[in-house]
Amino acid sequence: MSTTQIDGAAVNPKANVYFDGKCVSHSITLADGRKASVGVILPATLTFGTGAPEIMEGVAGACEYRLPGTDTWQRAGVGDKFSVPGNTRFDIRVAEGETAYHYICYFG
Amino acid sequence: MSTTQIDGAAVNPKANVYFDGKCVSHSITLADGRKASVGVILPATLTFGTGAPEIMEGVAGACEYRLPGTDTWQRAGVGDKFSVPGNTRFDIRVAEGETAYHYICYFG
Repeated sequence: MSTTQIDGAAVNPKANVYFDGKCVSHSITLADGRKASVGVILPATLTFGTGAPEIMEGVAGACEYRLPGTDTWQRAGVGDKFSVPGNTRFDIRVAEGETAYHYICYFG
Repeated sequence: MSTTQIDGAAVNPKANVYFDGKCVSHSITLADGRKASVGVILPATLTFGTGAPEIMEGVAGACEYRLPGTDTWQRAGVGDKFSVPGNTRFDIRVAEGETAYHYICYFG
């Protein structure tokens, strides 16, 4: 099970476009005031920097991710969550020919 | 002036990915129950089909659009709105090297 609808959100209609559009997200504020984004990653291998810690939740498709200080790629699909520490970098990839990875990213 | 925040929305966290990611949007339901989406178009010339009539509002960047039955490309930027009839097709383009066009699309 994964989140299929986020109610009572405040949505910033201007998208965040990363890596020439390989990742596109929209920033939202949840009903409880937490910041989050809803986004999609197309087939690519990308490195992101974090500010606040992040929790990623897959809502469609799948990705592989590699956390800082590890050599291991781990797979995450629909309903899977993984945490990324703040002020670091991590790798995420979606293989060519695979479905895009759709996610909710919870900050803080 | 354009809309900078949409409050009280229900957000579908799974993105709509069109034309290999040249257009990515997220579907939302507004507080008053109307359906809409927030999206971005990267540099490309695209043809979209409509079901319900649509009102497009630019929130960042600019595009040119060509409505059905016309030969004229019209420019629309931040705060500009244009209407597209239902059950038709229309063209929209963002020139190479231009900023992406960020929009809210109101349905019905």
